Amino acid sequence: MQAIVKQKRAPGLTVTSVPKPAPGPGEVLIAVRHAGVCGTDVHIADWNAWAEGRIKPPVVVGHEFAGEIVAVGDAVSELKTGQLVTAEGHIVCGHCLQCRTGNSHICRNTRIIGVDRDGAFAEYIAMPATNVLPLDGIPTTVGAVMDPMGNAFHTVLSAEIPGSTVLVAGCGPIGCFAVGIARAAGAAKVIASDVNTTRLALARRMGAHVTVNAGVDDVVRTVLDETAGEGADVVCEMSGVPSALHQAFSAVRMGGRVQLLGLPKGEVPIDFANEIIFKGITVYGVIGRKMYETWHQMRRYLSAGLLDPRPVITHQFPLAKIDEALAAIRSGDAGKIILEIA
Amino acid sequence: MQAIVKQKRAPGLTVTSVPKPAPGPGEVLIAVRHAGVCGTDVHIADWNAWAEGRIKPPVVVGHEFAGEIVAVGDAVSELKTGQLVTAEGHIVCGHCLQCRTGNSHICRNTRIIGVDRDGAFAEYIAMPATNVLPLDGIPTTVGAVMDPMGNAFHTVLSAEIPGSTVLVAGCGPIGCFAVGIARAAGAAKVIASDVNTTRLALARRMGAHVTVNAGVDDVVRTVLDETAGEGADVVCEMSGVPSALHQAFSAVRMGGRVQLLGLPKGEVPIDFANEIIFKGITVYGVIGRKMYETWHQMRRYLSAGLLDPRPVITHQFPLAKIDEALAAIRSGDAGKIILEIA
Amino acid sequence: MQAIVKQKRAPGLTVTSVPKPAPGPGEVLIAVRHAGVCGTDVHIADWNAWAEGRIKPPVVVGHEFAGEIVAVGDAVSELKTGQLVTAEGHIVCGHCLQCRTGNSHICRNTRIIGVDRDGAFAEYIAMPATNVLPLDGIPTTVGAVMDPMGNAFHTVLSAEIPGSTVLVAGCGPIGCFAVGIARAAGAAKVIASDVNTTRLALARRMGAHVTVNAGVDDVVRTVLDETAGEGADVVCEMSGVPSALHQAFSAVRMGGRVQLLGLPKGEVPIDFANEIIFKGITVYGVIGRKMYETWHQMRRYLSAGLLDPRPVITHQFPLAKIDEALAAIRSGDAGKIILEIA
Amino acid sequence: MQAIVKQKRAPGLTVTSVPKPAPGPGEVLIAVRHAGVCGTDVHIADWNAWAEGRIKPPVVVGHEFAGEIVAVGDAVSELKTGQLVTAEGHIVCGHCLQCRTGNSHICRNTRIIGVDRDGAFAEYIAMPATNVLPLDGIPTTVGAVMDPMGNAFHTVLSAEIPGSTVLVAGCGPIGCFAVGIARAAGAAKVIASDVNTTRLALARRMGAHVTVNAGVDDVVRTVLDETAGEGADVVCEMSGVPSALHQAFSAVRMGGRVQLLGLPKGEVPIDFANEIIFKGITVYGVIGRKMYETWHQMRRYLSAGLLDPRPVITHQFPLAKIDEALAAIRSGDAGKIILEIA
Repeated sequence: MQAIVKQKRAPGLTVTSVPKPAPGPGEVLIAVRHAGVCGTDVHIADWNAWAEGRIKPPVVVGHEFAGEIVAVGDAVSELKTGQLVTAEGHIVCGHCLQCRTGNSHICRNTRIIGVDRDGAFAEYIAMPATNVLPLDGIPTTVGAVMDPMGNAFHTVLSAEIPGSTVLVAGCGPIGCFAVGIARAAGAAKVIASDVNTTRLALARRMGAHVTVNAGVDDVVRTVLDETAGEGADVVCEMSGVPSALHQAFSAVRMGGRVQLLGLPKGEVPIDFANEIIFKGITVYGVIGRKMYETWHQMRRYLSAGLLDPRPVITHQFPLAKIDEALAAIRSGDAGKIILEIA
Repeated sequence: MQAIVKQKRAPGLTVTSVPKPAPGPGEVLIAVRHAGVCGTDVHIADWNAWAEGRIKPPVVVGHEFAGEIVAVGDAVSELKTGQLVTAEGHIVCGHCLQCRTGNSHICRNTRIIGVDRDGAFAEYIAMPATNVLPLDGIPTTVGAVMDPMGNAFHTVLSAEIPGSTVLVAGCGPIGCFAVGIARAAGAAKVIASDVNTTRLALARRMGAHVTVNAGVDDVVRTVLDETAGEGADVVCEMSGVPSALHQAFSAVRMGGRVQLLGLPKGEVPIDFANEIIFKGITVYGVIGRKMYETWHQMRRYLSAGLLDPRPVITHQFPLAKIDEALAAIRSGDAGKIILEIA
Repeated sequence: MQAIVKQKRAPGLTVTSVPKPAPGPGEVLIAVRHAGVCGTDVHIADWNAWAEGRIKPPVVVGHEFAGEIVAVGDAVSELKTGQLVTAEGHIVCGHCLQCRTGNSHICRNTRIIGVDRDGAFAEYIAMPATNVLPLDGIPTTVGAVMDPMGNAFHTVLSAEIPGSTVLVAGCGPIGCFAVGIARAAGAAKVIASDVNTTRLALARRMGAHVTVNAGVDDVVRTVLDETAGEGADVVCEMSGVPSALHQAFSAVRMGGRVQLLGLPKGEVPIDFANEIIFKGITVYGVIGRKMYETWHQMRRYLSAGLLDPRPVITHQFPLAKIDEALAAIRSGDAGKIILEIA
Repeated sequence: MQAIVKQKRAPGLTVTSVPKPAPGPGEVLIAVRHAGVCGTDVHIADWNAWAEGRIKPPVVVGHEFAGEIVAVGDAVSELKTGQLVTAEGHIVCGHCLQCRTGNSHICRNTRIIGVDRDGAFAEYIAMPATNVLPLDGIPTTVGAVMDPMGNAFHTVLSAEIPGSTVLVAGCGPIGCFAVGIARAAGAAKVIASDVNTTRLALARRMGAHVTVNAGVDDVVRTVLDETAGEGADVVCEMSGVPSALHQAFSAVRMGGRVQLLGLPKGEVPIDFANEIIFKGITVYGVIGRKMYETWHQMRRYLSAGLLDPRPVITHQFPLAKIDEALAAIRSGDAGKIILEIA
């Protein structure tokens, strides 16, 4: 089958032919229809320091996808061929402390598809049945972005949203999803910040009441003005930019909550006394999706029409044009990019 | 000043002239503009068993209102004359265990205006400043119903609403408010039941996706059909009708939550094993409004335009027509009724 | 192998020889050393209405046990022969809404060992590896009672215990465990009630500060006296007796929490307004053990020596003497009874 | 009356005579018996940068105390002369968002006794009745340290303690209180770290299972060894030392909770991705005491004998010997120091 493969310990991805996988016991085989391209895929293509330390080529890349079940392995009872599905890409051990206490999303033995084992930029992928979620009418274009959208759901819904003022700092695809989710969950006011006007326009389209160009205007000032000087109840830090981190701590109200999803590179100096302790705030590190509460929430929101994530999907490419997809991400002007595989 | 007074230990209310109150230390004097009429006022007028045990005439009745501050007593710094305000009608002691641990709404020493001390169906009322909430642009017609709307906020928002299916059983004014609040807080589906078609129409107007005439159709069957057999995540029991209580326990999903606001008369036989324990559900008794989280939430929702409660206000009468107001409530066809006082 | 079998749709249990099971894929085979006898086993022996509706003979009974892994099926990586283990007896589907959202304990497709499939009153039992918990130094006599002790952990620890006053109503084995757990979790005062003096002595031995003979003294009066008139912060209703239910609602303080584990037979009339709603309380139906948070907590408590449940184990019988074990339970004077199998 | 006064904008404190205060409306006058000396008092004496920016001499210092009510102002009903009491030293506005939503401990208008208005190192102090808590049998020596002990209660009990492994980093008086509270609340294992052997001995006396000399041994290694490699469920950072902050983030388990009470000076560089986000942890900034849940908890623990804080009180001085008290604190070898005033 055709697949996008990390062949060697060097920059670049290769579109090539690899053997079609077979579903083992407890697995299903899925014919991929659409797959989302992620910043992680760019890192693997670019062979950055993280990729160098983690990836063991050759490996089929890609971890966001949706498709159709075409074969079912032994001991799988709840899924059947013909179902359109998406999947959680974190394959967890099931028996560590975290897995045993409802926190599989931070299982220490997690293996990620497209990173630690063959992924989804391919015609077929074999997945454990536990990781597979029927789409029940959600289109595969949307199913293909439920992995990153799940990060946004996890970020937003682990805070108290109904009636709150929410600052979303960073309007990449996950930030834009977060804007839409906060609106759907009854936020009273959603403020979104970024340095890129295309992304800010996307945030507005997803429902932001107020957008701030952080390269031009004062984010903290804007939040204070919009909240009668109190600050935001919830800040979702989706950028990983050090200045945005400080803005998060300044813009959150006394006793508020800062959700950290964006990954700063290296160390950021923080004044713990004034930025965190004296404010009495709570800070939460967001990783992955709650398995499977987050997926349940997503299907509810999507099925009920509470959220339409499609404006965030700005580009669609065939599998062979992966380099163009990566270039669009690197440009910074793209929302979510998906590959059309079948 | 003109006021509606419970004069004697017998049925009836009297519109009469009483002395204008003066604000004591820590109090403000409010010129009432609008006041809501409540089922409790009907009980006081009718002199039912509860009223007979609780009310000590003469007392000015009425506990839901909004108006303008016209005088400020000693030791009040945060309020000033000219402000339009509403007020929490539960005057609590401030030093019992409940008051000291954030649960003033169940203070054992609560005194209610219009019940235990003079109330709001009058040209003026003196209120402790702590109980007074500035309207900040919310109209006094809406301010006059924030007390019962607060019960609905307390009922709905003490459950997990975003993405949930919610059954509101009983579409009196508080039930109709609850429908609107559940929608605003991101419920995926709101189902409302009642036996009165006027009220069901009001529930639909407030945003119910599905309405069920409980006198004609099977409420539990409808909820199961609408939830793929799972049941509702949250049931708000707003009717106090025994059959609706059983429907609540049958219609809630395994592990769901039943919020009890409606007050059944006397005892209702319950099969605790099958209706509560085997289902692993949580049941919560709702009384009053959280002081003052609920009021904060209300002002946020109203200011942000997340909720427009005005369709629920179906009738407006002058003070002198209190008997007509009571008759409209007794008819069962009214939404919320308010008195226009100034 | 030797086993205790429900042979026919009629009263009685039979000690007989049955084929030794083999572990399927994902299962392990456990040589049972000790097994706990439960009221449920009495119901099955007695062939009561519940048993008649649920049990399909022939079936090996017994669902509480500990033993040694003697064989490991395919696809099991985290367990190995020689390990001493206990097991969760609820075998759940893993793909329903409850299982997918961290609430497997109320999976609608639960099959219970010793009830819906062959159980633990036998020399060997085959169990899914996911249900098996290593004892890590906990003796098998204690391991054999971790299933009912888990119900007590679930009951107690789903309330806020540190610093609280706790009433445990009903001092059967699970009630006595609850007393010890409440003490270990930092309850300021534990009050225990029962009508049986032997059980009350056991409750005192497990750490109850105060015991009340509910057949002689006024439970509610005692709780109010012990709490300066406030009532208990938490009531654990472990008896299923209607009068104890009413005592639970009367003895809990305003805003407190009632945990319901005891199963009343049939309906109990409740005054919802006065017993639940006006008090602003929360009521929670306890079923099974949280999978597997409860098991994690138990192992922590037992390994740390926070709790010694052994005083509750009052009798030990060989497998062949099951009738004597059942008689001891029926007497009402026993704590927990275990069978010594190997 | 005699009092310890910050007279001038320069180092030093003065024992001198000042006018005896009178209780205003809503206030009581308290004859101070014992008062705790805090690091804050050292800062005021030393006239450090914080003091220079905040203190407006002359002011009576001291904010931790207990004594007897000797006079009651107007409009105070719930307190009476002769009562032994302690008090919350944060005087809050009561009408800001935080005060209105149960978070007075982070009121933006807080005025602290002994800092922003006259304090407790004096024969008498006037206090708002709302801030005053009857001791109900707790001795005034203990009452005098309930303010800092309350910080420890807030730190520990805002995490989930029963059955948990807790690292207390920093064994000053508040850290030592935290050790005792964690034990009383049912922690399975309490590990305490400090660089001072006297303090570590005090931590052991308060119940620490394991102590680590952070100047000699590897704190993180010890925690991992004691937790089978998982890390601590809860870390209470009580030191404010940058290296201890990093240890906190390294020693906490995946998904655990870090409570920050110690105040680092200036900025500390943090690797947010690896220290917080990838670990999926929650970080909480602790300021003051929850008003008044924390005080309620303290009185419960102390009255029930769950906690004996007296070993932490290592020194007692008369009012006149404040300089010796400050010297003992500066030595680093003291636990809690109290002044005996009457």
